[in-house]
Amino acid sequence: MASSAQDLGRNLIQRVNVGDSLTRAAARYPDRLALVDGERRLDYRELNALVNRFAHGLVAAGYARGDALALASGNSIEFLVTYYACAKLGVVCVPINLGWRSDEISYVLGHSRARGIVVERQLIPSVAEAVAEHPAVSHVVVVPGTGLEGGQPGHTLVGAVEFGDLVAAGEESEPEAYVADRDPLSYLYTSGTTSFPKGVVGNHTAIYLESMSMALEARFDETDRFVALMPMFHTAQLNCHCTAAVMVGAALFIERGFDAGRLLDLIETEKITQIFALPMMYREMLDHPDIDRRDLSSLRRALYAMATMPEAQLRRCLDAFDCDFYLLFGQTEMSPTATLFRPEHQLSHAGAVGTPVTNVQVAVMDEDGTLLPAGQDGEIVYRGPHALTGYLDNQEATDEAFAHGWFHSGDVGHFDSDGILWFTDRRKDVIKTGGENVASIEVEKALYAADPNIAEAVVVGLPHERWTEAITAMVVPAPGALVDPEVLREKLRGHLDAYKIPKTIVVSDGLPKTSTGKIQKNVLRKSHSGLYAPDGDTEPSI
Amino acid sequence: MASSAQDLGRNLIQRVNVGDSLTRAAARYPDRLALVDGERRLDYRELNALVNRFAHGLVAAGYARGDALALASGNSIEFLVTYYACAKLGVVCVPINLGWRSDEISYVLGHSRARGIVVERQLIPSVAEAVAEHPAVSHVVVVPGTGLEGGQPGHTLVGAVEFGDLVAAGEESEPEAYVADRDPLSYLYTSGTTSFPKGVVGNHTAIYLESMSMALEARFDETDRFVALMPMFHTAQLNCHCTAAVMVGAALFIERGFDAGRLLDLIETEKITQIFALPMMYREMLDHPDIDRRDLSSLRRALYAMATMPEAQLRRCLDAFDCDFYLLFGQTEMSPTATLFRPEHQLSHAGAVGTPVTNVQVAVMDEDGTLLPAGQDGEIVYRGPHALTGYLDNQEATDEAFAHGWFHSGDVGHFDSDGILWFTDRRKDVIKTGGENVASIEVEKALYAADPNIAEAVVVGLPHERWTEAITAMVVPAPGALVDPEVLREKLRGHLDAYKIPKTIVVSDGLPKTSTGKIQKNVLRKSHSGLYAPDGDTEPSI
Repeated sequence: MASSAQDLGRNLIQRVNVGDSLTRAAARYPDRLALVDGERRLDYRELNALVNRFAHGLVAAGYARGDALALASGNSIEFLVTYYACAKLGVVCVPINLGWRSDEISYVLGHSRARGIVVERQLIPSVAEAVAEHPAVSHVVVVPGTGLEGGQPGHTLVGAVEFGDLVAAGEESEPEAYVADRDPLSYLYTSGTTSFPKGVVGNHTAIYLESMSMALEARFDETDRFVALMPMFHTAQLNCHCTAAVMVGAALFIERGFDAGRLLDLIETEKITQIFALPMMYREMLDHPDIDRRDLSSLRRALYAMATMPEAQLRRCLDAFDCDFYLLFGQTEMSPTATLFRPEHQLSHAGAVGTPVTNVQVAVMDEDGTLLPAGQDGEIVYRGPHALTGYLDNQEATDEAFAHGWFHSGDVGHFDSDGILWFTDRRKDVIKTGGENVASIEVEKALYAADPNIAEAVVVGLPHERWTEAITAMVVPAPGALVDPEVLREKLRGHLDAYKIPKTIVVSDGLPKTSTGKIQKNVLRKSHSGLYAPDGDTEPSI
Repeated sequence: MASSAQDLGRNLIQRVNVGDSLTRAAARYPDRLALVDGERRLDYRELNALVNRFAHGLVAAGYARGDALALASGNSIEFLVTYYACAKLGVVCVPINLGWRSDEISYVLGHSRARGIVVERQLIPSVAEAVAEHPAVSHVVVVPGTGLEGGQPGHTLVGAVEFGDLVAAGEESEPEAYVADRDPLSYLYTSGTTSFPKGVVGNHTAIYLESMSMALEARFDETDRFVALMPMFHTAQLNCHCTAAVMVGAALFIERGFDAGRLLDLIETEKITQIFALPMMYREMLDHPDIDRRDLSSLRRALYAMATMPEAQLRRCLDAFDCDFYLLFGQTEMSPTATLFRPEHQLSHAGAVGTPVTNVQVAVMDEDGTLLPAGQDGEIVYRGPHALTGYLDNQEATDEAFAHGWFHSGDVGHFDSDGILWFTDRRKDVIKTGGENVASIEVEKALYAADPNIAEAVVVGLPHERWTEAITAMVVPAPGALVDPEVLREKLRGHLDAYKIPKTIVVSDGLPKTSTGKIQKNVLRKSHSGLYAPDGDTEPSI
């Protein structure tokens, strides 16, 4: 036991732990504003005390290092309190994507071996069935919930305890648990594939260093005031933004979802210094009548992700927001940022995805594992301590991702002669047609350029006897507009080589999307897989 | 073997390695200036290639993970090339302090189990005897040497090979070796104690995160141009400055030693953005006739360490250099920075040592292991991943340093009500006299204040039958001045409580010092240990 106490003492001194960054922020900036959630405001001392109390409550409920705790919540103080309590205990946090179906939630609860779940009251109906399917999920903690009306009274979870009761029973002292540098902090399940999601095991060192990369490169400091409006169950909001903010002692204004007018108002009234949003959200703000009436001068930087911003929109943004713009590029597996498209490159290299951050090396690799020089397209691969530990209980996927001593992103792209990275397409979205490789994204861009009546366009390759894959477009016309597929195909001749023109253009009312607004190409490929089948059968014809 | 290749592949992707920060800087900023050493200039591509070639040369010579390689060199490109080659291979670098006696060098070569040494030609006479005593130090690499005239021809080392030959034989490709996050990168032997030095085991994670702390907090970036003039065999120059510069892709101008006129000239001609020097060096620059003739406007920040700067000098510095000043406070064991005294506090809290850096938590502890509130003096203790692994082969010292789950600095100090840390004294320099604790530093300050004719003053406690320790001062008069001990004791009555006035004041021509200019109190305590012995015997009277 003496030796074990000594091991714990050393661990507490030396370890890399995401929870310790909160402990240190609270010691350094006890009186600084940490979180704002509706009417509630916590300084760093209060936030740390709340996390410690909840952590002690979890310990009392039997949680120990390595146990998994699911978390179903919109953006809230309790979301972050749960995350940091897990970090301090070496418990693994498993955020539930609020866009998942019940069978997906059930899969994740089972696959992650969760022994409990923290759930907001109004979300109980969404998770109740999945929780009931897993007796191992025996500990249910209910958060009152904020921002939405209370849940339907008909749904309850057996044996549920109140978040507030756990907190009230817990001590305020630091919970001192042994946690190794590479212990898992989160299982983040990636969505959007045809199979059930894979569990990305994120470890303390990876997430800690990613937060440091962000803080260093985008120059976060304790005077910053960030808005957290993207879903916290996603790595980008959670690890680029929230953990990096806590690391430097900045304030986080927690929002549930996006409303252009409300965000513009918040920037002015709370003197926000940083926002992080999708390009479409910036567009909505630009088009909002309040944009010229609001004082946005407190903004230092605006982050965006998920997609590059068209140059014209970027110019409008720079004009309206008058701050530095950064695109974050990476993926859940890289915790997530791998490159930043920096203010100084935004206009000179519009459309690129940036340059590597401090802790990441980026290269481009061919299919044999050979690194390619600038100018050549290949798979974007990474090295650096941001990288995931592996996929949970999926050795095959892990081995594949780590082949040739580099992490394989699944993205295709190239470096230009200035050392700036360009994204071409997701590797699985590159269409192999008649012996040629065609980036679906190139065809999508041509569709938008060819016809201003197109609101949304997506291009996939579908199985075809002659072409292997036939380039196929789905387009959604702008409200009130009409799109004629044959006329559109004619127009594309001015924009694309003949072999890149879609064999078929399907006009549609809408497209399936993930909760972050990404079009689900895999869903479209599946639903249209029989489009070119000779006998109309949707099954493979082997 | 397949499994081992896979392990290596994962390690190369995920690890925290100081050498990788150079690999990444070279990938990101290949054409940026990295090092300037006399007439030689290397960009990051060239520096990385040189490191790789030397690393391959070391591998060919049989070095493997965990082997120790000693390094005796003034500041030079080869110093840093050796350090980074060690980092990439998992070899442990053991810098030799150029102020050590031959028996100290011999002790370190033996204690570290060095299997080789990299030595500058002109330093061969200093190390030859020690190397000859250790047949295990079988591999000697001679660096041509720069800045000093070639060594005496009479000294040679059997079987020595030329640095340039190793480099020429090595490949330019990345040496891909398995190195764990917590593998040792350096054994830095701390000097200045009565016994032989202790070997501080510094690991990759600690040194990597310390470099990130520095870069983040002092806002280093790739446009920075640093002067490296403090000895690289010290942690402060090596890890605060050199590794942090490489991490962000900044340029390092390597100097051997300090000359006020030369440094002022260099700042102007090379548009230096950052200097790191001792307070006395700033004083010399302030007093130099060139100070008003030089354009110093490129300076962004000036770092200092080892001592606080008197407020009057600081005001002159701020006026003359017109940039941000930072004091670095910490110790070799913390890799080394624990707190930074920041620009915004320099004048409002003159004399303090600052606030914690991102990766360090600082507290003040009593002798029972209880943390003390603000305002109370106690031992300064740290938590955070900057901390050393331990003392090499010295479990007792390691256990003592890590007692109560905090690293014990050996420094006494307190936090003020603004959360700013003040240093009172080294714990071992606090004098226990007549039941009271007196900080030697308080008495030293009073001596300087009482008599402007004192050039240097140092105060120690010496064994005394009645007082336990008797407060004793050694003073060096300014050139041409005289100091009368009894008159001085009278003058002190206006500055100190009676019990704090030295029982004896010894006037001396000079004081023993370490290579960084610290007065060696331990040497004085030893040489004067019999001052109060009843029979004049210098041995303890038990």
